[in-house]
Amino acid sequence: MIIVLKPGASARQEREIFREIHRLGYKPHPIHGVARTVIGAIGDERTHKTLETLTTWPQVESVMRVQKRYKLVSREAHEKTSVVKVAGLELGGRKIQVMAGPCSVEGEKQLLTTATAVAKAGATILRGGAFKPRTSPYEFQGLGLKGLKLLAKARRETGLAVITELLSEQHTEMVAEYADIIQIGARNAQNFQLLVSAARTKKPILLKRGLSMRIEEWLLAGEYVLSSGNSRLMFCERGIRTFESYTRNTLDLCAVPIVKAESHLPVVVDPSQGAGRADLVSAACKGAVAMGSDALLIEVHPNPREAWSDGAQQLSVDQFAQLMKELKPFIAAADRE
Amino acid sequence: MIIVLKPGASARQEREIFREIHRLGYKPHPIHGVARTVIGAIGDERTHKTLETLTTWPQVESVMRVQKRYKLVSREAHEKTSVVKVAGLELGGRKIQVMAGPCSVEGEKQLLTTATAVAKAGATILRGGAFKPRTSPYEFQGLGLKGLKLLAKARRETGLAVITELLSEQHTEMVAEYADIIQIGARNAQNFQLLVSAARTKKPILLKRGLSMRIEEWLLAGEYVLSSGNSRLMFCERGIRTFESYTRNTLDLCAVPIVKAESHLPVVVDPSQGAGRADLVSAACKGAVAMGSDALLIEVHPNPREAWSDGAQQLSVDQFAQLMKELKPFIAAADRE
Amino acid sequence: MIIVLKPGASARQEREIFREIHRLGYKPHPIHGVARTVIGAIGDERTHKTLETLTTWPQVESVMRVQKRYKLVSREAHEKTSVVKVAGLELGGRKIQVMAGPCSVEGEKQLLTTATAVAKAGATILRGGAFKPRTSPYEFQGLGLKGLKLLAKARRETGLAVITELLSEQHTEMVAEYADIIQIGARNAQNFQLLVSAARTKKPILLKRGLSMRIEEWLLAGEYVLSSGNSRLMFCERGIRTFESYTRNTLDLCAVPIVKAESHLPVVVDPSQGAGRADLVSAACKGAVAMGSDALLIEVHPNPREAWSDGAQQLSVDQFAQLMKELKPFIAAADRE
Amino acid sequence: MIIVLKPGASARQEREIFREIHRLGYKPHPIHGVARTVIGAIGDERTHKTLETLTTWPQVESVMRVQKRYKLVSREAHEKTSVVKVAGLELGGRKIQVMAGPCSVEGEKQLLTTATAVAKAGATILRGGAFKPRTSPYEFQGLGLKGLKLLAKARRETGLAVITELLSEQHTEMVAEYADIIQIGARNAQNFQLLVSAARTKKPILLKRGLSMRIEEWLLAGEYVLSSGNSRLMFCERGIRTFESYTRNTLDLCAVPIVKAESHLPVVVDPSQGAGRADLVSAACKGAVAMGSDALLIEVHPNPREAWSDGAQQLSVDQFAQLMKELKPFIAAADRE
Repeated sequence: MIIVLKPGASARQEREIFREIHRLGYKPHPIHGVARTVIGAIGDERTHKTLETLTTWPQVESVMRVQKRYKLVSREAHEKTSVVKVAGLELGGRKIQVMAGPCSVEGEKQLLTTATAVAKAGATILRGGAFKPRTSPYEFQGLGLKGLKLLAKARRETGLAVITELLSEQHTEMVAEYADIIQIGARNAQNFQLLVSAARTKKPILLKRGLSMRIEEWLLAGEYVLSSGNSRLMFCERGIRTFESYTRNTLDLCAVPIVKAESHLPVVVDPSQGAGRADLVSAACKGAVAMGSDALLIEVHPNPREAWSDGAQQLSVDQFAQLMKELKPFIAAADRE
Repeated sequence: MIIVLKPGASARQEREIFREIHRLGYKPHPIHGVARTVIGAIGDERTHKTLETLTTWPQVESVMRVQKRYKLVSREAHEKTSVVKVAGLELGGRKIQVMAGPCSVEGEKQLLTTATAVAKAGATILRGGAFKPRTSPYEFQGLGLKGLKLLAKARRETGLAVITELLSEQHTEMVAEYADIIQIGARNAQNFQLLVSAARTKKPILLKRGLSMRIEEWLLAGEYVLSSGNSRLMFCERGIRTFESYTRNTLDLCAVPIVKAESHLPVVVDPSQGAGRADLVSAACKGAVAMGSDALLIEVHPNPREAWSDGAQQLSVDQFAQLMKELKPFIAAADRE
Repeated sequence: MIIVLKPGASARQEREIFREIHRLGYKPHPIHGVARTVIGAIGDERTHKTLETLTTWPQVESVMRVQKRYKLVSREAHEKTSVVKVAGLELGGRKIQVMAGPCSVEGEKQLLTTATAVAKAGATILRGGAFKPRTSPYEFQGLGLKGLKLLAKARRETGLAVITELLSEQHTEMVAEYADIIQIGARNAQNFQLLVSAARTKKPILLKRGLSMRIEEWLLAGEYVLSSGNSRLMFCERGIRTFESYTRNTLDLCAVPIVKAESHLPVVVDPSQGAGRADLVSAACKGAVAMGSDALLIEVHPNPREAWSDGAQQLSVDQFAQLMKELKPFIAAADRE
Repeated sequence: MIIVLKPGASARQEREIFREIHRLGYKPHPIHGVARTVIGAIGDERTHKTLETLTTWPQVESVMRVQKRYKLVSREAHEKTSVVKVAGLELGGRKIQVMAGPCSVEGEKQLLTTATAVAKAGATILRGGAFKPRTSPYEFQGLGLKGLKLLAKARRETGLAVITELLSEQHTEMVAEYADIIQIGARNAQNFQLLVSAARTKKPILLKRGLSMRIEEWLLAGEYVLSSGNSRLMFCERGIRTFESYTRNTLDLCAVPIVKAESHLPVVVDPSQGAGRADLVSAACKGAVAMGSDALLIEVHPNPREAWSDGAQQLSVDQFAQLMKELKPFIAAADRE
């Protein structure tokens, strides 16, 4: 930790801060510059509850952290790239996995048609929301348990693994019973109770980035999962909120190489939520693959025009099959499978 | 709902959209302009699950909503300003209520000292976190039930009402037993399961604005509370996330007159979280009062330098007493008490 | 400057960085922590062209600035609050000055009607755009020289001082001939050539905050004015761009106390641009006064419905007169005139 | 244009708005819904100075645009993709052009070394700043005319075309004399006087996206170039400002397919400015190519550690040569050359 004193801080004030630094368990090292004194304080910042309180002293201008706040998710702690295994599949290995399926599970026919089609086109994991977080209480909230059972049926019939979102601690056991991967959505990305509850099921977790989450905060949310004893975590970039209104969100593809450098865990990209427009999904998937994504999460519906949620961003099964073909040369260029 | 067709859409394509509009339960009215055809579709948009799917048709350029999406929270539905009654106090009436207390409940002495001091200075409601949402799992997470019991004790000794944050559906009953007002924090502002769970306790709810929440989304989150049968809701502005880094958040004080115009419910401002710096709290409180806030939520600690969380934004009890004095002429200027 | 080395940097790598720090003209002071070495480098950072290049060394994790980058505008350099004198008026003194007038100068009658009315209601400075920066080339671009002459005429008839925007270095002399204060608009806030050109006229400058300008960048843009030999500078907060769409911009009123603490120069608030909606101007003016603004910049039009630009945010002359009355108790509460 | 009346607007108020719509040159078509009346107004919105003023009428709830505001840059007006020809090169054709060179021109040796190296590695256009917009007046501001002459010399020796930034109308002729492409930087993206001045030279223009520019505003800024009689325009995505601080800007790669769909003009990506970190440039270039960019603008320096500006984001010549090799399979995957 670095403490910058204000210009003109007296010797007495400096001693005061020295004592406080000692009290907090650090060892102070002063550097006297021309205009200011800077104090380096040696100690482990990650277990210290609140460095910023030093700024409450009138003689302190600013406090700067030296260490990163995350540990278990960081590559510093775990140099080797982690591969997350899910139902015989590897996330973060050479093969780029494609998770595809409808935004919401709407019924048996809709789900099985989609599942069969995406499996045929090369997807290995089926997505589908049984519990849906909706901005308005008057919108469709998902089929709940019935949706989970349909997902399980689709798994039996197609061999696809299943990913679905967990919205409430009340449902953790139920969702864990049916899902191969538990998804934590953007709105719950800092719902730490839910994260810990999901982590304890020992199921693999896909953690979406919150709408206005800094990468550091995202990694720290992941730290809640690993520090709860579950290391099967994937980070999923799905766009952040900005002033731009042509797209629903701004897909931050640079987050892919950054998270892969900072962390040892796999990174997934969701271009459907990320752009919010079906016509951009294909380009965004190509960009995601080129920038190092380990997997893609794509919304596919047999008839997007009749979708009960987010129709504007879902691909038809034909568009999805076409996309899978177009992705091949980019996957090869990225030296992946 | 307004549907704008692309220039060059054929008569057949227009008929297609007409049929679809009828299928969705609306009545279409076309207007043929020079370059484009626009279709007005009459019907109740608020109960319709997904208007945007019309953009999946190739001949549709854009779809625009006409109605607002919120009902019960809106002033359109409820012209008269609502006053929320809490333990004999009125929120949204002529008197500006001040909620004050420590960021976290840390112990009996810390809490009682603060409670006594803020009551003496004129606060009527005691704030204090027993469950704390922390960015890092290595930071202090709150005293839990012990914290709630200390809040109840402080209430008995000072007569202050108590507001505290609810973080998990698992704790809803416990928190409702001890709190006079249940606070839903910024990170959970779109945790709809938690909102509904809190609403069902029939306790008054203070709903903080999410870090990147548009006002429309905030009002719709409030709609979850009212549509669950609880109309004692307050909206609390606490700053939004922007690119500016001098302050932890950007306090959006214009949200106060906007929410008071759009909704009939009281508005509270939290300048401590909003600015994240103790030296800005006084100015922000004055601005909040001047712009029509019904209440203030202020962090106060007997010794901010030793606070276990967010020390940099907490006022000392002396600073708080001084602030309460300075606020008086502004409260009078705003024609409040 | 603080240089944080990566964990595991070798002694040789540390010596390498030592040599580089010396080469850059700083004196290095190492602090060896448990996991990392931190080097404090003493020297004047403000005249050093580029500290960040040190991050190009593989052993460097990060570089942190200790000094603030601005000098002449800072209160550190100039402790006493500056008052800017304009045509016998004081900006930054006890009296809150009100600048009012139409968004664009549209014609003699429109301007004189407005000028007479705002003078009568208590404004002391007339605003009016003769050159207008418009998002689209198909929108009204201002009357140019004719507009400037009308402003001069209005000044003669009412005694009001005149503020108007400078858009192009080609017009600097012309605008300086007619204006008492030269306004640099948000879109040109980092057009440094224009800033220097305006500064050299020795006229007082009002520098609006850019749409996505951090406060540090805003102060540094002001530094261009002072370092060009012109110390009559005012900063004008006019809202920043965020994701919120209820208002055209998000008025950042906390910037007022921050800039007044960081700098010795006056601060002005423009609630008309800041909120972009006439119905919010009154509340925003009250908030600005309460939070310490030295002046207000308000758009007023004799008939906003027929305004050639930004009609939705202009007050009528009656609304303006009403606002001036309502502001009085807030000005008194802020202990101003 | 669509005008939504407030619920409860009277028949008289509706007639009033009818008259106003007629006065503005539109033809009104009312649609009476259950709760609200909506009026479609037929006419050309693009030449109309200010639709929003209708919101000043008390009975109007909102006004919505139907037409897009840009004309000449739009694909609606010019269906065929435009290719911009520069010194025998085609921008927007099958071949992806690479523009490379130092952030700032620092001297003859630095520039010629870089130019020779980037030409050898496959770049066809040399970039280099002679006039530099710097946040602080104390940072290096560029060599000016001397820098332009060095760029011309490098062109003679390598055959590369030259792109350089124009900062001031005072320099337009001078820069046009030496440059093959005139760059308008992010900070000047809405400096319309500069845009028009550059356009009139008839040189090709590269228009960077402003830090907080919506795509619509960017296209409208381009409209200033085309409406000044210069159709050789390229749009350059270089990242937007968001809350994220791991990168200097957030590179919005989805802007590439969007601008290519909305407009007929070429799109360039600047990953150096976009990410602000050399270690992300390679991934960002691959993403840009995969998402359809027509060209790349990359900062390269013979010794980034000694660069006078932005050292942290410049590649060394070896890193650049390596990148050019790695890009090949992605260029082939995108079916480009």
